[in-house]
Amino acid sequence: MHLRTIEWISDHDTGPVPGRVRFIDQTRLPLDLVYVESVDVREIWQAIKTLQVRGAPAIGVAGAMGVAVAVQAATGTAGELVRVAHEAADYLATSRPTAANLFWALDRMKKKAAALAHQPADAVKRGLVDEAMGIRDEDAAKCHAIGRHGATLLKHGQTVLTHCNAGGLATAEYGTALAPVYVAKEQGKTIRVFADETRPLLQGARLTAWELLQEGIDVTLICDNTAAQVMKEGRVDAVLVGSDRIAANGDAANKIGTYGLALAAHAHGVPFYVLAPTTTFDLSIESGDGIPIEHRDGTEVTHGFGRQTAPDGVQVYSPAFDVTPAKLIAAIVCENGIARPPYKESLRKLLG
Amino acid sequence: MHLRTIEWISDHDTGPVPGRVRFIDQTRLPLDLVYVESVDVREIWQAIKTLQVRGAPAIGVAGAMGVAVAVQAATGTAGELVRVAHEAADYLATSRPTAANLFWALDRMKKKAAALAHQPADAVKRGLVDEAMGIRDEDAAKCHAIGRHGATLLKHGQTVLTHCNAGGLATAEYGTALAPVYVAKEQGKTIRVFADETRPLLQGARLTAWELLQEGIDVTLICDNTAAQVMKEGRVDAVLVGSDRIAANGDAANKIGTYGLALAAHAHGVPFYVLAPTTTFDLSIESGDGIPIEHRDGTEVTHGFGRQTAPDGVQVYSPAFDVTPAKLIAAIVCENGIARPPYKESLRKLLG
Repeated sequence: MHLRTIEWISDHDTGPVPGRVRFIDQTRLPLDLVYVESVDVREIWQAIKTLQVRGAPAIGVAGAMGVAVAVQAATGTAGELVRVAHEAADYLATSRPTAANLFWALDRMKKKAAALAHQPADAVKRGLVDEAMGIRDEDAAKCHAIGRHGATLLKHGQTVLTHCNAGGLATAEYGTALAPVYVAKEQGKTIRVFADETRPLLQGARLTAWELLQEGIDVTLICDNTAAQVMKEGRVDAVLVGSDRIAANGDAANKIGTYGLALAAHAHGVPFYVLAPTTTFDLSIESGDGIPIEHRDGTEVTHGFGRQTAPDGVQVYSPAFDVTPAKLIAAIVCENGIARPPYKESLRKLLG
Repeated sequence: MHLRTIEWISDHDTGPVPGRVRFIDQTRLPLDLVYVESVDVREIWQAIKTLQVRGAPAIGVAGAMGVAVAVQAATGTAGELVRVAHEAADYLATSRPTAANLFWALDRMKKKAAALAHQPADAVKRGLVDEAMGIRDEDAAKCHAIGRHGATLLKHGQTVLTHCNAGGLATAEYGTALAPVYVAKEQGKTIRVFADETRPLLQGARLTAWELLQEGIDVTLICDNTAAQVMKEGRVDAVLVGSDRIAANGDAANKIGTYGLALAAHAHGVPFYVLAPTTTFDLSIESGDGIPIEHRDGTEVTHGFGRQTAPDGVQVYSPAFDVTPAKLIAAIVCENGIARPPYKESLRKLLG
């Protein structure tokens, strides 16, 4: 797969800033493939907030690179740059509340900054760029590994169903839930995909369908409310979804609608797999009850895509995520391998 | 409730046609309340096909009135008018395949025409208009009765969840699934409603939310994929849905997404009720497997808001209905009363 969702562009020979973030503006897909370049931490915050960059692992990379650009743009002593890094990290942490990866990446940038506090100022700048690039490259490597483990769960000719976008666009590259599909293809297996369109923001229609078509995968788009029927018709061999945060007991937060999908899969005996890098795990949270859930503005539902489709004054309830209880999850796949229930033990073992 | 979804307007003093059909163009809601008047059977066919008139009982009324306008517009002997009536009925039957009410109403118009074959031509015209108006008035009366029976299932202060639009707009007036909510209100009970937006055509957002607000009912709009989460949060006391066809064993076809909703209700111990007039029942069909399911054009999913939201060339699977198995249905309510499992016996008894 050749998609580069977010990366750091170095250009030592132009201007005072030795590099910039480049990312795909996902709000413009599927009609336009537009790359945005930025050297402004406020633009990065805005890009995360408005879902130009979205997907838990990609948000983590964006956060790390946001800290790096903030420090690049600053002047002062190493100590002052470290303070800038901390402030940028705290600021970026306010962009979205659910994804564990964002906070993990920002903490890592803070720790790196602290470790560089006694270096020359230039070394602080360089070191934080390197750290952000490292987070990106590690994310790509983790996704490859998730794909290799996940592909062992799929047989040639099978069909999977996925929700939202946990593909290459949700990560540095390759994806989490879709990684096994890409790896299976490289192994010569044909895997077909049903993609839930995923209201209200249609990440499945706009992003998952787009990137699968780009990679030559057979994809069929359905409305979210059609998934149970497709399973009833015996067309689905497995459900693959990503996650934004996984608790110690295996409860997994993911895009709203995932929980209903898990109930439908359970009712039809279809295995339901959650795929995510270890950075998505939050073992400090015992169960899904402790995962904070972001609520989105109702206009995303009532005025989707530039047109009013609900009456003025109607109340809207729009949580961005739900939590799928561990008992509905057949396996959790991360870069270290495959965990099976009971997760309290298997996750601790896998995360060592 | 004051909404008049479809009715016959008589005007003996204007022109050669003594009456016309008037209906709300539901494709224009919720932004514009537009009434369409027609004396052309092809316009009625088109109105059903394009969902200007939709909802199984309302489609039945529209079909009957379509036959009436076709005969009004024709000239000839009584025998020739009867042939026109039969041809119009067969033509209107091709507009949409799933709703039992349409075929029931068209058959009734055919029988009425045959019974009038030996009357003067004018009496045939008048008789078929009367029959269509009778079908409309009976539908309204049935909906009132469904509301009275259904209201016994609801307590003051409860919250129901509904899918698509099985309200006044789906029938001559009052609705099926929403009738108990309106009757409960008349009885002084407060019932709150969660309305699924119902992709791809957003009947819940555009129609259900609109008509409930018109009637002063507390309504909250959710995406279809949020229903399971709302149930998990303990906010739903009952699910109320309509139906397009109910088989002898109680299996019920309804808008796509109803089946997944029934699975979610079952998982949370929330009673799932189907409400429909007896004209929706098709006891000639043993189970839901025999109900023909309409498939809609994929562009309704990919170009749903006047804007393209999925990539060119993506495949789409878009059944308009699914079938909820009887075992997930706590009760079926019709104008004759409330049927409980096992439905094979209780439905026969109720329809006796």
